[in-house]
Amino acid sequence: MDPDTVSKAFVEHFYSTFDTSRANLGTLYQDASMLAFEDQKFQGAQNIVAKLASLPFEQCKHNINTVDFQPSGLAGGMLVFVKCNFQLAGKQHTLKFSQIFHLMPTPHGSFYVFSDIFRLNYA
Amino acid sequence: MDPDTVSKAFVEHFYSTFDTSRANLGTLYQDASMLAFEDQKFQGAQNIVAKLASLPFEQCKHNINTVDFQPSGLAGGMLVFVKCNFQLAGKQHTLKFSQIFHLMPTPHGSFYVFSDIFRLNYA
Repeated sequence: MDPDTVSKAFVEHFYSTFDTSRANLGTLYQDASMLAFEDQKFQGAQNIVAKLASLPFEQCKHNINTVDFQPSGLAGGMLVFVKCNFQLAGKQHTLKFSQIFHLMPTPHGSFYVFSDIFRLNYA
Repeated sequence: MDPDTVSKAFVEHFYSTFDTSRANLGTLYQDASMLAFEDQKFQGAQNIVAKLASLPFEQCKHNINTVDFQPSGLAGGMLVFVKCNFQLAGKQHTLKFSQIFHLMPTPHGSFYVFSDIFRLNYA
């Protein structure tokens, strides 16, 4: 698969997993992974998933707007930039956010999230 | 200087140069540099600066909202995520956008933009 297809497939997999079972996102991070979530920083799959799992809602739905991809230039890494809408179950209001994933290849031919930066886009 | 300070200094330098003399931004890119500007893609300092210089306005002012930094993990690269407002001279209305810079070190101790991804944040 070409990198553009890989990055879009990754993003779709990430948000569908987020929407159905956030605790399973841990498989997409490793010990060296970093998350910047608004002004908070986390390192390591366990801490990152603990943060995501602690977000104060149960069910949600992501609608991806744009996915931009560029190679990160080294060791097969990929820079993926997502604009996305986010809706809580039973709510009409949507939140907009931007998220960056720096994906690095694993020895098994898949990718993990080395860096993850999340910022809400206030209107 | 620590990476956080470097990334903030870079971002301030980038937008102040953009606001005063866009043509000088060419020194911040190299031949391998890539720009994704909305749905358009450009490669190389010359093509990137030609695109930025061709934007249909003369004077503008950037106001940086947030700057997030993470090491890109290889060869001293830095991932910088910016949320910013943008105002044209004489206009009240501001545009919001997100921009990612993947900065790579030069042999001379400074940084150049290896990847640049720009997306407007529509309200």
